[in-house]
Amino acid sequence: MTENSSTPPYAVGIDFGGTSVKPALVQGVRIVKRATPFDPQGHSAEETLRLMEASVRELCAELPGVVPVGIGLPGLVDSENGIVHGLSNVQGWNEIPVSRILSERLKVPVILENDANAMAYGEWLYGAAANTRHAVCVTLGTGVGGGLILDGKLFRGAQLAAGEIGHTSIDLKGPSGPYGNLGCLEMYVGNHHISARALEAYSAAGVSAPARECTPQELDLAARNGCPVALKLWEAVGNELGAAFANIVWILNPDVIVVGGGVAKAGERLFPHIERSLQSRTSVVINRNLRIVPAILGNDAGAIGCAALALSAAGVPCPQ
Amino acid sequence: MTENSSTPPYAVGIDFGGTSVKPALVQGVRIVKRATPFDPQGHSAEETLRLMEASVRELCAELPGVVPVGIGLPGLVDSENGIVHGLSNVQGWNEIPVSRILSERLKVPVILENDANAMAYGEWLYGAAANTRHAVCVTLGTGVGGGLILDGKLFRGAQLAAGEIGHTSIDLKGPSGPYGNLGCLEMYVGNHHISARALEAYSAAGVSAPARECTPQELDLAARNGCPVALKLWEAVGNELGAAFANIVWILNPDVIVVGGGVAKAGERLFPHIERSLQSRTSVVINRNLRIVPAILGNDAGAIGCAALALSAAGVPCPQ
Repeated sequence: MTENSSTPPYAVGIDFGGTSVKPALVQGVRIVKRATPFDPQGHSAEETLRLMEASVRELCAELPGVVPVGIGLPGLVDSENGIVHGLSNVQGWNEIPVSRILSERLKVPVILENDANAMAYGEWLYGAAANTRHAVCVTLGTGVGGGLILDGKLFRGAQLAAGEIGHTSIDLKGPSGPYGNLGCLEMYVGNHHISARALEAYSAAGVSAPARECTPQELDLAARNGCPVALKLWEAVGNELGAAFANIVWILNPDVIVVGGGVAKAGERLFPHIERSLQSRTSVVINRNLRIVPAILGNDAGAIGCAALALSAAGVPCPQ
Repeated sequence: MTENSSTPPYAVGIDFGGTSVKPALVQGVRIVKRATPFDPQGHSAEETLRLMEASVRELCAELPGVVPVGIGLPGLVDSENGIVHGLSNVQGWNEIPVSRILSERLKVPVILENDANAMAYGEWLYGAAANTRHAVCVTLGTGVGGGLILDGKLFRGAQLAAGEIGHTSIDLKGPSGPYGNLGCLEMYVGNHHISARALEAYSAAGVSAPARECTPQELDLAARNGCPVALKLWEAVGNELGAAFANIVWILNPDVIVVGGGVAKAGERLFPHIERSLQSRTSVVINRNLRIVPAILGNDAGAIGCAALALSAAGVPCPQ
């Protein structure tokens, strides 16, 4: 491979998900090469660390110089000290000093970041939030996560736990969420909750559901085909997301809210309702220039963001 | 007056309220001297500017050197360019370049800030949020305002309108607030709403209210005397504030939430309920080290914060 001064530097970005660890060699917004993904379930932390080490060596085998590594993980991560406190859906990752272990073995800098923060950073640097100062990135999936870029920097908060939009409440007397918060957003718009609501709505309407599970994808298709139950459900979800986003907007007054993840793919059905709800709940001064946009880096946002954060930590900032 | 190297520098802080403009000479956290306050109502903007100019001259008459001026105003303020876009309860202040006008006349730097932001800055620099990195300051009065210190800096947002905690919603189907947001916090815990709820509760309980207006102060007294209606009302208000604060905590993960303003004076009645509500709605990781504390600078927080911001803008940062 050849490099010239206008080529962005290389970094490895590892998207560590609950069922798949995906290492990639990244150059700016481009995925240059992917290593074979593997499942962290059933492996000990040490085994997974060895697999990550081997992947990085494989990805960087032909490259001269030091290639820093960034890892995005689904859980509580001390990104300042490179320690994983615990992962949401993977056992055996309590208080593991991942950065120290891997950087000693690989002789390159290794940084950790919460996965939602890494995705937010990727979307801000190269994606839907590029060229903004204050960006909120929300991921809609089984869980509802988020990351904040404030004043052009990733904002992590006191315990590095900021941006947990899925746990904010839209109804102080609503159903209890995973941490006891009544009416927390995830209980309305998390994948499984959307499916459950759909099945209930079809049953109440005396109409047979379009699919046994009624995933957001199936409901999107049903809505495209004009199914009134599905259309009404997307309207409700858009209204609820708009209510949660309005709270974020009144608190942070961002330039842009980026919406990614599976549920966001129902874009045409969903975004107009979010916009309408948000407009009706905020003042003209703060919503006039606010943009609500779909994420554009897709599944690669995490790896791209991690790689960029690794370079930034190594003193090689990535130009937008 | 004498000065030595350990004495904080002087600045003028002007707390511009809806019914009273209060100029003061400030030294660090200390109010050195107060000028006669005056009512901005019934004066044109130009007359008020002349009165402010005279106050500053009077306060600084005996001081050598340049004394910068900071003004905190209740409304939409472009603090970067020193322009008042409009004030909440004072007519005639649309698009007035206050900083330019006053600095030309006084030959000193003049900065503007939203009043809630100025108070937040004062409490963070010298008050209840001193020595923290991420602080949220909330003022409970007729309106419910707020200011954010994030990463040790005043955070203003894209349209300089961040921190509007009073307009966030705690119930997506609740009563409509001033900007159309359903269930906005101010509709539950603003002074007038607390009074109205109290009168309704006394009436429903078939008990005569302790006072004709049932102000928060009167309700505080009633609760101290063991009145069950008042005690129950404070519990509800604490629960609602806890729900709104939980949203802030999930989004920002701050070190501290400072609560000031008239309603906050019901401290003993109110704070335990806020704490309980907040604890039940957040995870241990983020609430373990979180402090909810009353403001300590009282009515002087605004003037102190403005003065410090004026010094900071003039390149004289105030040591904590």
